[in-house]
Amino acid sequence: MTTFDATVRARLKALNLTLPVPPQPAGAYTSAIRANGILYLSGQFPIADGKPRYEGRVGAELSEEEGHAAARLAALNVLAQIDRALGGFEALVTIARVEGHVSSAPGWFNHPVVLDGASELFKAVLDERAGHTRSAMSHHQLPWNLPVELVVTAAVQA
Amino acid sequence: MTTFDATVRARLKALNLTLPVPPQPAGAYTSAIRANGILYLSGQFPIADGKPRYEGRVGAELSEEEGHAAARLAALNVLAQIDRALGGFEALVTIARVEGHVSSAPGWFNHPVVLDGASELFKAVLDERAGHTRSAMSHHQLPWNLPVELVVTAAVQA
Amino acid sequence: MTTFDATVRARLKALNLTLPVPPQPAGAYTSAIRANGILYLSGQFPIADGKPRYEGRVGAELSEEEGHAAARLAALNVLAQIDRALGGFEALVTIARVEGHVSSAPGWFNHPVVLDGASELFKAVLDERAGHTRSAMSHHQLPWNLPVELVVTAAVQA
Repeated sequence: MTTFDATVRARLKALNLTLPVPPQPAGAYTSAIRANGILYLSGQFPIADGKPRYEGRVGAELSEEEGHAAARLAALNVLAQIDRALGGFEALVTIARVEGHVSSAPGWFNHPVVLDGASELFKAVLDERAGHTRSAMSHHQLPWNLPVELVVTAAVQA
Repeated sequence: MTTFDATVRARLKALNLTLPVPPQPAGAYTSAIRANGILYLSGQFPIADGKPRYEGRVGAELSEEEGHAAARLAALNVLAQIDRALGGFEALVTIARVEGHVSSAPGWFNHPVVLDGASELFKAVLDERAGHTRSAMSHHQLPWNLPVELVVTAAVQA
Repeated sequence: MTTFDATVRARLKALNLTLPVPPQPAGAYTSAIRANGILYLSGQFPIADGKPRYEGRVGAELSEEEGHAAARLAALNVLAQIDRALGGFEALVTIARVEGHVSSAPGWFNHPVVLDGASELFKAVLDERAGHTRSAMSHHQLPWNLPVELVVTAAVQA
């Protein structure tokens, strides 16, 4: 029988994706806490190798397509954090909540389109355990002028 | 013995309220996830029949009274989502958290007054199971130029 | 054997800190909900004796140092809420999540530095139970023109 973890690795490979080294915390906190059947993750951003890959606001410095790609990259960092926190994906029950924060120019209102970049990656990789509920928030800016921040909560084996 | 669910239906009727059809997700996610004794709901907005009922920022395009009514309408959508997700209100233990996001004009700071439109409806309908903790956030705008978004977490039977 | 609660009291004393009376809710909600092994707290602000101690945006009306102090004061209110909600710190398992909302001037992006004011206090007082994951959000303003709001979730004994 194929484990869920093996299935996830096969899907990543088929998508030509490699999980990055999970980004380090930016301050006096930790990347993940697992307690009472819940996995809490710190906010994840579209960074790679410790550097921002996208900067600015969607609808101004960035297009919707770039915002969508930024959300997808942040989601890849989420997957890397889950992998490290749980020691693989076997203990994941379902992604429960994705809070999607988007830095956006005044008058640009298409946040769900950008955040689908994250949701679609979760679906492609985790499928029946991808869950998830979502909320879309607009910000005048985000830390380090990054365009997207994802705050994820997952249900895990207790 | 009257069930809690029957009590909720009676209260809704006495308030002359009908639960709407729960709004559809706006992207590649789901409206509700129930896992490990927690119900997570996607962000709910002041929409009815799939259309915005209020648009703009409180303190500019909208008055506090309109913001209060918008929060109440978003809360009615929350109740509809709970009803569908749990198959009635019997399994609800308590609303645990309401994150209240308000689109607001610069210099307008009365967010709690607007969000009481949601909290008061929860109290009127759910009473002893209305809970809830709350946080009030101000945004320069919200998706689709809507004035209020509610992100709700509830404790439910495991 | 020294209880964890006694250890926390000793640490507070060594830091020359007194837990304030927990701030009252600003509307039709409650300060804390404990359910199914989770403690949910309402958003906490840098207020003392019911009055704002800091007002305005970091990077404009307030310096980073003032923002850091404001985050620390909000965290002290969080500790006071935990103390009251649990009847002491014994039942605390770990702080799980800190959502850090910072009111900030356009072009100022150093939110993590400000929020470390909260995280460092949690570490100093709660140490091995301080946890926590964190997310940093930037807002154009916050309720009552306060500079920081903390939304905290803790794992507690079921």
